[in-house]
Amino acid sequence: MPSNLNKLCIHTITTRPWEIEQSSEAFSSSGIGGITVWRQALEGRNIVKTGDRLRNDGLEVVSLCRGGFFPATSASRRKLNIDDNLQALDEAAALGAPLIVLVCGADPDQPLATSRDQIRAGLEAIIPRAEELNIKLAIEPLHPMYAADRACVNTLAQANDLCDELGDGVGIALDVYHVWWDPDLARQIARAGRERLLAFHVCDWLVPTTDLLLDRGMMGDGVIDIPGIRGLVEATGYDGLIEVEIFSANNWWVRDPDEVLRTIVERASTAI
Amino acid sequence: MPSNLNKLCIHTITTRPWEIEQSSEAFSSSGIGGITVWRQALEGRNIVKTGDRLRNDGLEVVSLCRGGFFPATSASRRKLNIDDNLQALDEAAALGAPLIVLVCGADPDQPLATSRDQIRAGLEAIIPRAEELNIKLAIEPLHPMYAADRACVNTLAQANDLCDELGDGVGIALDVYHVWWDPDLARQIARAGRERLLAFHVCDWLVPTTDLLLDRGMMGDGVIDIPGIRGLVEATGYDGLIEVEIFSANNWWVRDPDEVLRTIVERASTAI
Repeated sequence: MPSNLNKLCIHTITTRPWEIEQSSEAFSSSGIGGITVWRQALEGRNIVKTGDRLRNDGLEVVSLCRGGFFPATSASRRKLNIDDNLQALDEAAALGAPLIVLVCGADPDQPLATSRDQIRAGLEAIIPRAEELNIKLAIEPLHPMYAADRACVNTLAQANDLCDELGDGVGIALDVYHVWWDPDLARQIARAGRERLLAFHVCDWLVPTTDLLLDRGMMGDGVIDIPGIRGLVEATGYDGLIEVEIFSANNWWVRDPDEVLRTIVERASTAI
Repeated sequence: MPSNLNKLCIHTITTRPWEIEQSSEAFSSSGIGGITVWRQALEGRNIVKTGDRLRNDGLEVVSLCRGGFFPATSASRRKLNIDDNLQALDEAAALGAPLIVLVCGADPDQPLATSRDQIRAGLEAIIPRAEELNIKLAIEPLHPMYAADRACVNTLAQANDLCDELGDGVGIALDVYHVWWDPDLARQIARAGRERLLAFHVCDWLVPTTDLLLDRGMMGDGVIDIPGIRGLVEATGYDGLIEVEIFSANNWWVRDPDEVLRTIVERASTAI
């Protein structure tokens, strides 16, 4: 379990439909240490002031979620995707977030290998600006069930290979939901190591899972050995926050977010 | 594309709700070369006579589907699971099927590593009887989305590792649905090689996929590069049949099986 709640971070999307200001106050009041901000939570706001407000509430702004989505069949669309990532970098800088999480994208209308090449090219295109702004880029390997249409970086090994190719400009966001099944997980976490592991996300895999995207479970309600994976991550020296990111259209998102938050706080000492 | 339909095999479950006798006649009339028999298709039948009938219709009996499902929290349940596999071996022998496909199983109530150990132990327990009967055992790596509750052998690399440990008594059934996303696929197919690749299954991954189990697509309706994967498989020297296995609760299973069969025949020359 986390020695204290200030090592816990919650993604704004987890306590949907709260506005970011509500989330910030409530997280802070509960003793939560950090917040990861989804870009849509910033819509219509002054980003600099929003970042200041989060910090004034006592929260660490852990990351901006999400960049990525590089592949597309047309060059003009790929250019727009890169521009959107550059804009996300500016938003992260304004917010004061040191990290952007990248869901790398996929395009069902072209070969997997083409999409994977375009992800590498997209990353290469944004790394210089990220370095200029001193913002880290975290490749998030996504579960293989998203390979067709959300992200075709699908294993930690593949993310590690990408990092090997791209150098110090990129690291990895590890989410237990995407990697818990991987027989090669322990070895690849050790290979990633402290330098490369930039974020650690938790939720749970439900049995049965009724929707490929929006049926994530609360920690402790599913099958993932979260403490075990956390142990592997911390054995590398990782001392960053543990981020709770739950998409749950028919369960947690229809409950009162106060209950969601209360449950996360309880589970922090029993299931993480 | 297959040079001719007699290299094509269809799983009985694909043309559900046809009875096996209907399937056999219809497959044969369409020029299909083989049939893979799901165990439930044999219920209430004389298995020896059913096998003879399939062969009399001109079909090759490619395999019996399925064994496996080894893991369980209790030793008595694991014993029952092994007994069921031994019975499946007897059924395969009676049917005249040279191969059993194994969906290895998983148990959400115990650690993944424990289930994986139990799979190895279960395989070790049935290999001697399979060798005695001269029936091959094909480990089918299942998509990682099934790791919690159906099978926790989830990559071809892991299946290859298992085969390395277990020796010549086991091989692999490769289904494009489970492995198409794998960045390590080409290398692992080459590693498996002709000796180990005992079966090759096709269907397609739909976008969107609306159900984790029963929303498989017809070849050509999804994103999988089936000819590409087939090329990798045949480059090993594989010259077995290509098996069509589609679970589709809301589409193909509610159509007339004649239409399903006709579509498979069409797609054989355009999408395989």
